Amino acid sequence: MNDLSTMSSLSKEDILELIEEASALKKGKQEHGLAGEFVANLFFEPSTRTRFSFEVAEKKLGMNVLNLDAASTSVQKGETLYDTVKTLESIGVKACVIRDSTDEYYNELIGKVGIPIINAGDGCGQHPTQSLLDLMTIFEEFGGFEGLTVSIHGDIKHSRVARSNAEVLSRLGATVLFSGPASFRDEQNPHGTHVDVEEAIKRSDVVMLLRIQHERHTEKMGNDNYLSTYGLTVDRARNMKERAIIMHPAPVNRGVEIDDSLVESKQSRIFKQMENGVYIRMAVLKRAFQKSRLHQKGRDSVYVISH
Amino acid sequence: MNDLSTMSSLSKEDILELIEEASALKKGKQEHGLAGEFVANLFFEPSTRTRFSFEVAEKKLGMNVLNLDAASTSVQKGETLYDTVKTLESIGVKACVIRDSTDEYYNELIGKVGIPIINAGDGCGQHPTQSLLDLMTIFEEFGGFEGLTVSIHGDIKHSRVARSNAEVLSRLGATVLFSGPASFRDEQNPHGTHVDVEEAIKRSDVVMLLRIQHERHTEKMGNDNYLSTYGLTVDRARNMKERAIIMHPAPVNRGVEIDDSLVESKQSRIFKQMENGVYIRMAVLKRAFQKSRLHQKGRDSVYVISH
Amino acid sequence: MNDLSTMSSLSKEDILELIEEASALKKGKQEHGLAGEFVANLFFEPSTRTRFSFEVAEKKLGMNVLNLDAASTSVQKGETLYDTVKTLESIGVKACVIRDSTDEYYNELIGKVGIPIINAGDGCGQHPTQSLLDLMTIFEEFGGFEGLTVSIHGDIKHSRVARSNAEVLSRLGATVLFSGPASFRDEQNPHGTHVDVEEAIKRSDVVMLLRIQHERHTEKMGNDNYLSTYGLTVDRARNMKERAIIMHPAPVNRGVEIDDSLVESKQSRIFKQMENGVYIRMAVLKRAFQKSRLHQKGRDSVYVISH
Repeated sequence: MNDLSTMSSLSKEDILELIEEASALKKGKQEHGLAGEFVANLFFEPSTRTRFSFEVAEKKLGMNVLNLDAASTSVQKGETLYDTVKTLESIGVKACVIRDSTDEYYNELIGKVGIPIINAGDGCGQHPTQSLLDLMTIFEEFGGFEGLTVSIHGDIKHSRVARSNAEVLSRLGATVLFSGPASFRDEQNPHGTHVDVEEAIKRSDVVMLLRIQHERHTEKMGNDNYLSTYGLTVDRARNMKERAIIMHPAPVNRGVEIDDSLVESKQSRIFKQMENGVYIRMAVLKRAFQKSRLHQKGRDSVYVISH
Repeated sequence: MNDLSTMSSLSKEDILELIEEASALKKGKQEHGLAGEFVANLFFEPSTRTRFSFEVAEKKLGMNVLNLDAASTSVQKGETLYDTVKTLESIGVKACVIRDSTDEYYNELIGKVGIPIINAGDGCGQHPTQSLLDLMTIFEEFGGFEGLTVSIHGDIKHSRVARSNAEVLSRLGATVLFSGPASFRDEQNPHGTHVDVEEAIKRSDVVMLLRIQHERHTEKMGNDNYLSTYGLTVDRARNMKERAIIMHPAPVNRGVEIDDSLVESKQSRIFKQMENGVYIRMAVLKRAFQKSRLHQKGRDSVYVISH
Repeated sequence: MNDLSTMSSLSKEDILELIEEASALKKGKQEHGLAGEFVANLFFEPSTRTRFSFEVAEKKLGMNVLNLDAASTSVQKGETLYDTVKTLESIGVKACVIRDSTDEYYNELIGKVGIPIINAGDGCGQHPTQSLLDLMTIFEEFGGFEGLTVSIHGDIKHSRVARSNAEVLSRLGATVLFSGPASFRDEQNPHGTHVDVEEAIKRSDVVMLLRIQHERHTEKMGNDNYLSTYGLTVDRARNMKERAIIMHPAPVNRGVEIDDSLVESKQSRIFKQMENGVYIRMAVLKRAFQKSRLHQKGRDSVYVISH
């Protein structure tokens, strides 16, 4: 398949190939095969960061980009997502990047529309390119995943990142730990073990923090209390392993889930994650088009994407 | 004139030339004459579909595109549309595509500003590129218009599509029928005859459905009742002529004006209309620039659009 | 420094160089050095005119443009401007153009982030590219500034334009006069003298009008009264010097600060100002990148902006 809906749809080989391709692109490998193709970014939930990262990836590939932001969409007029994507396909769009607040929105698209769908985040479900950029960042650091310990800190229950990453990291041979307030626990998630914050930090090669929705979650306890009880303070960071790194999907709440001074510390890979995101998305787009062409050619031996 | 305000401003020859040019572009004819030129899409009413169609057309021509959507405009600051367009002209924009909720907004622009205006829909008035793509789709199917019967179904009174299409189709030699609830009738429109839905469908070569504004119009009767009383049901579709086709300007309310299963049926040309829209808009833009250059050259023998 | 925050950060030589470069670009000089670079326009206050002018400038330079408009930003999620810009830097953006309602917002960025910041207007503070385009327009007309008299009319107290222009014009050797209602006076501003409107107009080589925020300011007196008491009427315009010109930063309130018929009169340079704005912004961008490279190379002898 040429789509990217969830991390579980990617084999271990797929993942390693994507990381390898992204690393090559980061080192300056030129890629012109998608130049001039049209791609649409449909963001029904606002996410400047992810949208810009995709837009840079697309433009580095020389693609023509259409941006649809939540505010001005005909979906408001009662059109289904299926009809929106079919329309885009009709006017010449060759791939869609979609973020939507509905869980598994892509099920009404994949296998039904004729162009690849790249999931840029669905409801409380998945955010596979975020997972991939996290994996790329870990791979750059440690050269692999086998035997690593990764702790995920925060709202395990509602986080797309926790969901995607726990599954794939344990599949790749890492040990996953969860840490955070009792009300954020996800007892259904089989891919990690809940431990307290001190243990999680001491044992980890990767300390992966989640963004706290402080509007929702720190109401009762306040930001300062959250940081001191569950967050990564300067004191706790002293207990990290020597080569351990700090990761965060961003945007960061400085002083809530992490001490302000740690965000740009020597251990932090937070801005490197963002940098890697562009190259991972280029690799994902390239793969979508390659598979798309093969798939189409296999099906009717005629279809060739025009340049 | 280089503008495109209404269908009635186009002669029969103009229309056939535009369809011919669009068909050539669809077949792969390359057009580089507008590459690098700036065009602005000013959409004071949201319309993702039409805006994206223009944007794809413009980018296929290699143009530089500025998009102004309703939310973020200085027109809010009390500036007139005339001053907005003059500003764009001053900063190097060479054509404006405009959608506005005011009827005939273009009257304050055409002949007063120095760049061509392309109407992408005005109030309850006209939507000429929609008409042209409809005509192109009919032409592709039947090779002409003389002697065809086209029925338009829905809110004849408030529809831009009905207004533009009825006039031009009857001018091109087709017979136009109107069908729909009594409250939607437009007795002032001299270009068609009101008949009941069964007769309209049986007699038509083209069954052209309009979108029902169901917020407004199906309040009393409900969607199901509208479909069974006035819409294109599977049963009614069986009474269509053998080679007759279904058209709709979209977005479609599946299950309101048309049965869900007919939208992508063999008779439907709905997604082909959207595809044709891109090529028609390319042809309209090309014409606007060609005429613009001739006009300007004729006037002062100096003006040359820079590349 | 490669940033552009205020006019006072530019020396007289800087200003004349920018005007010279902009004039060369206006005459058709080609500039390809920034082609393919990414630039982000962050407009946290709406300003179609300024944003479009920058976007045209950037695209004429062949740059890749990211637009962030107020509505859809993660800054809403509680992220600081610093983190937003660091994110953009991480994903490959090489310069940021920013408008924000906070005075001197750039102080949290300049010297801290690694890419140049170009101020497109801050609070009631500065709007340096507007000043520069005004200066370019005056220079085109008079070949210099020494000995000229420039009167600024309107809300001197709250205007970014008045603030920037009075300082730089007096530094360049011009005499600055202020005129307007008593409540708009800015007694703190040392760069101009308050005089009545008749005197200001008679003495000026340049009559520079400001936009009246008529929602706020003409409540009591009405638009007509404002024009007849403080504005540029046709009668007053007759008292202008023979070669004197009219300028306005736009958008213009026709019939409030200026008589409708004067906006496009022979003395008006209002639309020429807008035209010049594109070339000034090209020159400012070019300078930001040139300085940026030198600065970076000087610092670590390694950093080279990729193409």
